[in-house]
Amino acid sequence: MKTALVIDIGGTKIYNTIINENGEIIADIEKRPTPKTFGEIRAAFEEIIRKHEDKVDIIGVSTCGAVNNENTGILGSTGNIAADYPSMDFQSLSKKRVFVENDANAAAWAEHVIGASKGMPYSIMLTFGTGVGGGIIVNNKLYKGKSGAAGEMHFKLRTDKHRKCTCGAWDCFEIYTSGTGLKITAEEMSGNPNITTYDVIEGKMTDIINRWQNDVLAGLIGLANLFDPDVIVLSGSLGDFLDAEYLEREVNKEIVTQPLKVRHATTGNYSGMIGAGLLALEKTLTDQ
Amino acid sequence: MKTALVIDIGGTKIYNTIINENGEIIADIEKRPTPKTFGEIRAAFEEIIRKHEDKVDIIGVSTCGAVNNENTGILGSTGNIAADYPSMDFQSLSKKRVFVENDANAAAWAEHVIGASKGMPYSIMLTFGTGVGGGIIVNNKLYKGKSGAAGEMHFKLRTDKHRKCTCGAWDCFEIYTSGTGLKITAEEMSGNPNITTYDVIEGKMTDIINRWQNDVLAGLIGLANLFDPDVIVLSGSLGDFLDAEYLEREVNKEIVTQPLKVRHATTGNYSGMIGAGLLALEKTLTDQ
Repeated sequence: MKTALVIDIGGTKIYNTIINENGEIIADIEKRPTPKTFGEIRAAFEEIIRKHEDKVDIIGVSTCGAVNNENTGILGSTGNIAADYPSMDFQSLSKKRVFVENDANAAAWAEHVIGASKGMPYSIMLTFGTGVGGGIIVNNKLYKGKSGAAGEMHFKLRTDKHRKCTCGAWDCFEIYTSGTGLKITAEEMSGNPNITTYDVIEGKMTDIINRWQNDVLAGLIGLANLFDPDVIVLSGSLGDFLDAEYLEREVNKEIVTQPLKVRHATTGNYSGMIGAGLLALEKTLTDQ
Repeated sequence: MKTALVIDIGGTKIYNTIINENGEIIADIEKRPTPKTFGEIRAAFEEIIRKHEDKVDIIGVSTCGAVNNENTGILGSTGNIAADYPSMDFQSLSKKRVFVENDANAAAWAEHVIGASKGMPYSIMLTFGTGVGGGIIVNNKLYKGKSGAAGEMHFKLRTDKHRKCTCGAWDCFEIYTSGTGLKITAEEMSGNPNITTYDVIEGKMTDIINRWQNDVLAGLIGLANLFDPDVIVLSGSLGDFLDAEYLEREVNKEIVTQPLKVRHATTGNYSGMIGAGLLALEKTLTDQ
């Protein structure tokens, strides 16, 4: 069975392990903090690859930032990581082929192959963490758009310039439904500038959680009417606190398209690595 | 060159003509009011088909309502037409193959093959009339979703239940940007319950037009971030009054995906028939 070395890089941590064609993790999971500079990040990649590349057929990278349609590099800039990291030439780091995909897309793919959206050709996965990531699967393929940047959950929930999003625009779905957004909603509703998402979730502050969940619902309705998916999958550290049953019932009351499912993700914290591995290994098959 | 008899049916009129493989109209355009009852609608179809079917290779129907992925019939209900019309068995009306597509999808296809989005694999067409229609093209194919109902422009522009949409949900893009929506915006801003869209457009009421156009802009930003299209095409009787240059400039300032074009449609009033004909004729090729 073929295997892939997989590396997941985000703003705070770099993980790596080895994945087989079934999406099983078959080696230790190594973890290090994401270094501050581009040179140090590249050195970390070189070290990981040198150590493992001879054992595997291909390398899969799950990264923050939008990835081009050739799966070779990053488009534009990505927040929260060394500014010149997007210029990384991933293929130059290894003699084996290096396949790169956006982390939310990779996680959506893991759910599609072995998780909550398995067997369903049309799905949308939303990752609720510090930000909101999105991965869209259309007819059993990742939907990437003209450049590779599709699936950004920056559509407006208001038009009166109420809350500025981290992307620079106003009132995106992300700035209401991410962890950052939930904290702002909590501040607005409680009047306490020091309130945290932890306070809200642990303290079971129902009014705030309901407001946040109904903002999520508003977005799901739009996504369902635009994409007519089989399922919307909820993931990420905050995704667990959404009520999938409630959201499925309510979204199906309001849409003009056909009924869909809302499900929690099942592939866990390493879904990005699993998806990048599965995508990379699929690529080794189509190359033959 | 192969030809298709094409029929376009909406809430008020039924049109028919003949289209060739280049999307050219090669016969007279016949027009009649849409009858009130399902029986009369079926009789009108039978009459049109009996008259023309022997001259053509296939029949293409452009209809209001969402059409299934087999292109044989209508999903669910459609407003503004006989309630049992969606149960029509189109194929039973002719010995030639009958290919059915939603009117906005068909019009988007006409733009893709011979119009404003020609040569561009990823496009979204929006038709601004009494309502708002949408057609999405992904990798040179119509995007239909799991059931065929995708591309409905019912995503929320507000979450405070301000304006009820014709679809029954609150605050959809359609109820702010359609002709119906523009009239409500004009009523709200002018305080005059009798104001019409004609008054607004002919009277060059800039404040109202700008508010409407900025609601359109808000939607385009979300669509661009979700779909990363090459182009968004504006069509319909009200589409002409949108400033494509302004919208293109502003949308590209706010998105996190890659730059796109905003263009006016070029295939005119019969785009639904042209697109249905082109789709049907393409189908005759793939069947061989």
